[in-house]
Amino acid sequence: MTADNSPPGETQIIQRYFAPLAAGTPGAFGLSDDAGLVQTMEGHELVVTTDMIVAGVHFLESAAPRDIAYKALGVNVSDLCAKGAVPSVYLLSLALPEPPDEKWLEGLSEGLAEAQSALTCTLLGGDTVRTSGPAALSITALGLVPTGRMVHRSGALPGERVYVTGTIGDAALGLALLQGAQSAAVDNLSPEHSAFLYNRYWRPRPRLEAIEILRDHASAAIDISDGLVGDFAKLCDASSAGGTLMGADVPFSGAASAWLAEEPERFGAAITGGDDYEILMTVPQEAAQSFERDCRDQGLQITCIGHISAREDGVNIQGKDGQALHLERQSYEHF
Amino acid sequence: MTADNSPPGETQIIQRYFAPLAAGTPGAFGLSDDAGLVQTMEGHELVVTTDMIVAGVHFLESAAPRDIAYKALGVNVSDLCAKGAVPSVYLLSLALPEPPDEKWLEGLSEGLAEAQSALTCTLLGGDTVRTSGPAALSITALGLVPTGRMVHRSGALPGERVYVTGTIGDAALGLALLQGAQSAAVDNLSPEHSAFLYNRYWRPRPRLEAIEILRDHASAAIDISDGLVGDFAKLCDASSAGGTLMGADVPFSGAASAWLAEEPERFGAAITGGDDYEILMTVPQEAAQSFERDCRDQGLQITCIGHISAREDGVNIQGKDGQALHLERQSYEHF
Repeated sequence: MTADNSPPGETQIIQRYFAPLAAGTPGAFGLSDDAGLVQTMEGHELVVTTDMIVAGVHFLESAAPRDIAYKALGVNVSDLCAKGAVPSVYLLSLALPEPPDEKWLEGLSEGLAEAQSALTCTLLGGDTVRTSGPAALSITALGLVPTGRMVHRSGALPGERVYVTGTIGDAALGLALLQGAQSAAVDNLSPEHSAFLYNRYWRPRPRLEAIEILRDHASAAIDISDGLVGDFAKLCDASSAGGTLMGADVPFSGAASAWLAEEPERFGAAITGGDDYEILMTVPQEAAQSFERDCRDQGLQITCIGHISAREDGVNIQGKDGQALHLERQSYEHF
Repeated sequence: MTADNSPPGETQIIQRYFAPLAAGTPGAFGLSDDAGLVQTMEGHELVVTTDMIVAGVHFLESAAPRDIAYKALGVNVSDLCAKGAVPSVYLLSLALPEPPDEKWLEGLSEGLAEAQSALTCTLLGGDTVRTSGPAALSITALGLVPTGRMVHRSGALPGERVYVTGTIGDAALGLALLQGAQSAAVDNLSPEHSAFLYNRYWRPRPRLEAIEILRDHASAAIDISDGLVGDFAKLCDASSAGGTLMGADVPFSGAASAWLAEEPERFGAAITGGDDYEILMTVPQEAAQSFERDCRDQGLQITCIGHISAREDGVNIQGKDGQALHLERQSYEHF
């Protein structure tokens, strides 16, 4: 509590809501220096990624700050995992409408604390500014990878298998619920299934358990943020390859399956909707057996959903019936 | 030119305006992967800083995108310099109003190209999103420093000298001009002096030539972004010290001197206004001679403007007359 009711200044905001998140970061110096220091590790390189999320675009303005914070860090850590890098530290730039809302900041700080504990990284530094527009968070996350072992988007070869972790479409369906989707299928969703889908939208589960497996077996990987179909196309494109994705093999959760059983026409939305934060990867045929065994040992659920082919074959998406699927859009794009 | 007149998509924006800026960055992979890879150097650590700038807050909405870009990168590189780190790579997160304005993006890209060439760093990665609010840029910059040699804000000891690079207040006076300041002093400014002050506002000159000297001689340093007085107080605070800043010794440019001679009451604004991107540092008495010699050899203009004392002495700012100066505010704070 401040002595008066005036809103906190920039320095107070940093000390009150962010310095505690950096308490465990050796190079953060309590957020009281101009920059942070990253401890590097011999024989390792740093993988760096950045993602910005804006109120009204990436989340509803009314969204709970705790959820926003969790998701903002989650989407960045997901990128690191897909590259085979172990999350280490992150920086946060925050643009806030004026005057700063202390309740909102408190929720944001709590969400970051929850996320950084689950995602094994801590705050290194940041910047807090005001804006006349909607709130925006930009996070830059850094992770460590043994030198030369980063997993790329490029690298997939014809004949390799395409695998995906976890289940697809949950977050897209969760967002549809948030946006007030109405149908008989929605009416028939159990409260547990609805809660599961909401949660999948707000609490991405970056695949920390996949990091080492990816480095050991994957020839290429991408995290699914903009939709399975579009991100598969990006992986093929970066690898100068073609590929086939078999819709009948795409793994769905119980909740998504229940919904899609009643409303099969949502299938396209589920595989193009994005926000899955699962990992799509390619594995050579001859490595498939040991790859699958390592996944089982780690408790990492994976499903083979396609294969890579020559570039001239193009990128082919099959529907549940095995026929070519025609989609209105492949993935989420800004603009 | 696109075949039609539709605005470019996210992927096109990245390929057209940002990929060329990353062409010289080994770990950027043409901006076509999920993350960038930072080459580390044996015996070195990475210093990381982030700053966000928002239209209407940090720059006028009508500002030239080229200027905005230059300044956005400049303020980050200035932080690295003040920490004794050599700039290496940067990431850019960009929130754009819809639809994206290609002329604006082109100017932004040109400004970044100009800045990264002058400031010796290249683009590693980024994110481009849309916003319903004003444009915002968040830059994270990384620099290399020999292990254990980062220069901190803390570390200043009683008895040490306080030095500043270059001249103070130019950017604050340039901003006053931009904001339409009117006075006899303004009327009497020569066109050359006006142009100089504008330029100092838009083209920060991070002190690359100070990096090694700082590492060799400075006990503490901070880059002056929020105003000389406030940043001096921050350095003292971080060092658990007090200090005296002698206003009569603060170095001013010809343009600022001409203005202040006619309008001495602007003195306070000049030393608290910020955007100087000069470096304030402390040097032990016994190192002063070799420090000053190294600065001369490097062509780095420095001025001794005060000294550090015990914490209980507090932070004292003397006016031009040597008397304690009472300022309405010490520095720029958001909120």
